[in-house]
Amino acid sequence: MKDFDDSPIVRNGNSLILAYDHGTEHGPVDFEPMPESAEPKHVFRVSEHDAVTAIALQKGNAEYYRKWQEDTGKSGAPLLVKLNGNSNLAKREDYYSPKQCSVRYAVEELDADAIGYTMYAGSIHEDEMWKEFREVQEQARKYGIPVVMWSYPRGKGIEENTEYSGQKDPEVVAYGARLGLELGADMVKCKYPGEQRDWEQLEDVVGEMKTVMSGGSKRSDKAFLEDVNATIEVGGNGLAVGRNIFQREDPESLLDKLEGVIFEGKNPEEVTE
Amino acid sequence: MKDFDDSPIVRNGNSLILAYDHGTEHGPVDFEPMPESAEPKHVFRVSEHDAVTAIALQKGNAEYYRKWQEDTGKSGAPLLVKLNGNSNLAKREDYYSPKQCSVRYAVEELDADAIGYTMYAGSIHEDEMWKEFREVQEQARKYGIPVVMWSYPRGKGIEENTEYSGQKDPEVVAYGARLGLELGADMVKCKYPGEQRDWEQLEDVVGEMKTVMSGGSKRSDKAFLEDVNATIEVGGNGLAVGRNIFQREDPESLLDKLEGVIFEGKNPEEVTE
Amino acid sequence: MKDFDDSPIVRNGNSLILAYDHGTEHGPVDFEPMPESAEPKHVFRVSEHDAVTAIALQKGNAEYYRKWQEDTGKSGAPLLVKLNGNSNLAKREDYYSPKQCSVRYAVEELDADAIGYTMYAGSIHEDEMWKEFREVQEQARKYGIPVVMWSYPRGKGIEENTEYSGQKDPEVVAYGARLGLELGADMVKCKYPGEQRDWEQLEDVVGEMKTVMSGGSKRSDKAFLEDVNATIEVGGNGLAVGRNIFQREDPESLLDKLEGVIFEGKNPEEVTE
Amino acid sequence: MKDFDDSPIVRNGNSLILAYDHGTEHGPVDFEPMPESAEPKHVFRVSEHDAVTAIALQKGNAEYYRKWQEDTGKSGAPLLVKLNGNSNLAKREDYYSPKQCSVRYAVEELDADAIGYTMYAGSIHEDEMWKEFREVQEQARKYGIPVVMWSYPRGKGIEENTEYSGQKDPEVVAYGARLGLELGADMVKCKYPGEQRDWEQLEDVVGEMKTVMSGGSKRSDKAFLEDVNATIEVGGNGLAVGRNIFQREDPESLLDKLEGVIFEGKNPEEVTE
Amino acid sequence: MKDFDDSPIVRNGNSLILAYDHGTEHGPVDFEPMPESAEPKHVFRVSEHDAVTAIALQKGNAEYYRKWQEDTGKSGAPLLVKLNGNSNLAKREDYYSPKQCSVRYAVEELDADAIGYTMYAGSIHEDEMWKEFREVQEQARKYGIPVVMWSYPRGKGIEENTEYSGQKDPEVVAYGARLGLELGADMVKCKYPGEQRDWEQLEDVVGEMKTVMSGGSKRSDKAFLEDVNATIEVGGNGLAVGRNIFQREDPESLLDKLEGVIFEGKNPEEVTE
Repeated sequence: MKDFDDSPIVRNGNSLILAYDHGTEHGPVDFEPMPESAEPKHVFRVSEHDAVTAIALQKGNAEYYRKWQEDTGKSGAPLLVKLNGNSNLAKREDYYSPKQCSVRYAVEELDADAIGYTMYAGSIHEDEMWKEFREVQEQARKYGIPVVMWSYPRGKGIEENTEYSGQKDPEVVAYGARLGLELGADMVKCKYPGEQRDWEQLEDVVGEMKTVMSGGSKRSDKAFLEDVNATIEVGGNGLAVGRNIFQREDPESLLDKLEGVIFEGKNPEEVTE
Repeated sequence: MKDFDDSPIVRNGNSLILAYDHGTEHGPVDFEPMPESAEPKHVFRVSEHDAVTAIALQKGNAEYYRKWQEDTGKSGAPLLVKLNGNSNLAKREDYYSPKQCSVRYAVEELDADAIGYTMYAGSIHEDEMWKEFREVQEQARKYGIPVVMWSYPRGKGIEENTEYSGQKDPEVVAYGARLGLELGADMVKCKYPGEQRDWEQLEDVVGEMKTVMSGGSKRSDKAFLEDVNATIEVGGNGLAVGRNIFQREDPESLLDKLEGVIFEGKNPEEVTE
Repeated sequence: MKDFDDSPIVRNGNSLILAYDHGTEHGPVDFEPMPESAEPKHVFRVSEHDAVTAIALQKGNAEYYRKWQEDTGKSGAPLLVKLNGNSNLAKREDYYSPKQCSVRYAVEELDADAIGYTMYAGSIHEDEMWKEFREVQEQARKYGIPVVMWSYPRGKGIEENTEYSGQKDPEVVAYGARLGLELGADMVKCKYPGEQRDWEQLEDVVGEMKTVMSGGSKRSDKAFLEDVNATIEVGGNGLAVGRNIFQREDPESLLDKLEGVIFEGKNPEEVTE
Repeated sequence: MKDFDDSPIVRNGNSLILAYDHGTEHGPVDFEPMPESAEPKHVFRVSEHDAVTAIALQKGNAEYYRKWQEDTGKSGAPLLVKLNGNSNLAKREDYYSPKQCSVRYAVEELDADAIGYTMYAGSIHEDEMWKEFREVQEQARKYGIPVVMWSYPRGKGIEENTEYSGQKDPEVVAYGARLGLELGADMVKCKYPGEQRDWEQLEDVVGEMKTVMSGGSKRSDKAFLEDVNATIEVGGNGLAVGRNIFQREDPESLLDKLEGVIFEGKNPEEVTE
Repeated sequence: MKDFDDSPIVRNGNSLILAYDHGTEHGPVDFEPMPESAEPKHVFRVSEHDAVTAIALQKGNAEYYRKWQEDTGKSGAPLLVKLNGNSNLAKREDYYSPKQCSVRYAVEELDADAIGYTMYAGSIHEDEMWKEFREVQEQARKYGIPVVMWSYPRGKGIEENTEYSGQKDPEVVAYGARLGLELGADMVKCKYPGEQRDWEQLEDVVGEMKTVMSGGSKRSDKAFLEDVNATIEVGGNGLAVGRNIFQREDPESLLDKLEGVIFEGKNPEEVTE
């Protein structure tokens, strides 16, 4: 994706991805703090904010998103179709995320602007996921749309390795990001390890590939914006966020602030004044 | 399926699916209370009732159904071909339902009006079933026919999770329904958890997707109609029923009542008078 | 197969299939009682008897059968190519029968008149076999040739279920037959459970599908003919037989008698006089 | 292969296959008794002897063989490409031989005159190998080239069966040969069980299919020629041999003698005089 | 590859492959001794040295390499796309390296001059890797580009075999090289067992196939050049090297010396003066 900067999911080189795959990954429980968020149209409407450069949806909601756009005439945000995902109902030997949408369907039927794929390096299923990603990446290249990797190293290879402190070990997170580069992603979504120097170390090993921080569970505006800003300062390219937006009464307010930090070069103090 | 409401398996927005896959799932034992029901033509004839908007059959019976229509000139109900299923003869490590009819065969050779697929989220085979469903759903879209998911979370992931009381735990049932939405079904068939507020909770998380209650084993008319009505009142779209119909001496009578409740806005008291 | 009665493997609605797959299933040991039977041409010649409506062969022998017909100018019986089979050399965790001939090869290269597939419901491999059967059945439909299922429920699901007395439990045999109907076979080959009322019960659950009794190991003419007749009287459609024919010095004599019982409406007493 | 006798790998109805797949199967250790034999061209030159009706090579050596023929203008023997094989480096749960050359490549790129496939009936991988052989055999038929099966029953099914004395049990060898016939091979390569009557018993169950004896490890000319002759006398069609040829200083001499026994109807005494 | 000597990755019959797949195989830790090496462009520039006949990259870096060439107008070295690889994050039962780039993508989209594949003979996954290599090799032949096998026997089959001292046992290394020949590689990359006579033994069993020594971890110039020279003297065709080059402050100096030894027939003493 030599022209990734021209992609609709990028603005001034950065991105803010509104993720709404929680009904798949966690089930209805994630909507409880804000019951309206269970209704897809509620979140579709949130994606209309200028700060949102992509809405990430599983196949079924992506179908309804296109229908909603057509029915209402609203534009919404560019569409990133998340190709794999998993429920937390199943008992698995180790982390795995099956594919439930083909690249062909995402592009030809859903007119996706980008596709996303979760990679669990460190799982006993890592090798199988590499093979699936290979095919996904090559098909996306054929269609000319960018590939975002949710790069989340986890599973037995991490848990049972005493050299690592866990999924947020800076070395683990940086290795995960580097794998995104090596395997051919255009952008990786990574956990924030906790310190700015950790993200800087990550940026040092990803070449020209884009990076976005994973939003995680709901936190205060201040703490959240400071982390986002810390990554931006050292070369990060933005944020993928779900619960921190759709679990709020007033998502517009936080989106305004994120817009300042991610796209307008403002610091957290400026935008929260 | 933007035009699902125009589908022959929907009438006034709702559906009544006469399911006859018990010879696969349970074997001849399900026909013992009403031996004529072992004869497919007996059930084909029942499907002629106006209340029935679809008859759900496995491949072999679907072939004979089309032959019966041709031989007799009868119209019968629209045909929903159930694509997967399993016998209870096999010993399985966990729940799984193999596919025994392709979408292509269902549509091109059997002229199906809809297809059905059973999903066992919670099983160790959940991920494999997601992959199969992915392909089924995308092929059905290609042919333009609706996809009904028998969404039955069960298996080790449910049984061994102490947070859940079992397959009818309202949270489990609602998560199963939401997965139907996320994975791209047009309608889900779910177990009735037992209380109207449970179904309401389910309706809150499925967006525009249709839902039908699973009929279950044979019960009294009154208890059965009240449950159906409870789901309709909070947004449910009807019923998929087998034994409660074909194990009766007089299925017409109950079908008359169901027609009132599901399609004509009547309450159980009105139709049983 | 609406026109199955017009198929060359059916005569007056019934069939007698001469099975010669024992070299695969049991090895040369089955030929020891009658060493000539090890020579395929010996059995090819037996198939010339008018009573035989099909000879069931594995791929290799089917190739030689067509060559023998060409070389000798003899017509032989219509050819049923058995698509799967297994040796008893391997140690298996549970029953399974791999496919060693494609439908395409059977039809296009071997000019098969019918195809056969063994189904072991009850095995831990049942689901895999359903998937293979799905493809086989749909391809056979494409070519317009009938599908005969050797429906033999067995394996851990039967052995470890205390409700069943074993493979010949009438309930097990009837469930196996019903699965043939549900999965789309045109004819099932089943074990005779031992009593006429068991076969009658089986006939009650298979709709219009044909059934043939499995010949089993060698027995006296009288006992054998009585069993065949018992199935015919309650709706059975004939017999698939191997050792009871090719292990005899004079197979013609028994074939004459079977012809009477299966195709000419005679009873065992009449044909043995 | 009705016209197998017209194949270049057959001469007067019989064959002598010079096998040179030991670098795959056993590694360089097999070349130690005769270091020149590690050099493929050395063996290519041996194949020029008139007695050799085929040289059996794995893909890589087959590529160099065709290059050697082109570079030197020598004709060499007809080429049999061995499609599967395995190293003895890996630890396997039971015997298995993966495919490393497709039929298409063997025929279209290597211009093979025949193809070979090893079958380990009795292994827990037997069923998988049957499926692979199915495809190989049908593709070879499409191209019209003969199929030679290295039929070597072995593995847990043989070892753990107390009825069998091992891989060379005459009953095991004969069953293996019969499987070649049933599965559609044109020629089987079998171990010599040790006695002429054993091979005769084998010939009794293979119909018109060709058989060749497996050469095994190096032995005296006399013992070797007597075994070969013993098989020829009861209907055998020759020999597949490697180490007994390429581990000798003077392979020409033994090849002269084998030519007499296999193709010219001479007995061992005549050719060793 | 009859014309492999004409390939751009060969110069005077030999090759020096600059390998840069460490971000995949080992993660960012390999860049720590020389932090600039984490930046792909840094290594791309090193590949401009005349001594480098190929740069070996995983898919993602190969994409950026082509972009870098286009952006800067620099030529760089010919491109060898490494098709498989693995992270050391995962816990595996035994060695395996999944494919993350197809031959088609390497050739058609990345315009690769050669492809590389790692083979772990001795692993319980050996057979699976043979099958993958089969397909890779045949596709590469179709496109007419050379195939380099990283032939590294390892895993349980080696570790648990008391006849072998380990991965560098000369017999193991030579068997691995021979497998490259048998399976159809054009060049194998092998570990240096430690003594010149070991490499000579390896050269004796590979026919015309090319061999390159694996560079391994960083060492002194002298020790390194002597090993390289030892292989060249007995028929070796060069070197594949990563850390010994990119972990140095001054890679140019060592590349100058390697150029002398590998391509200009100089000995280590000459080039280090």
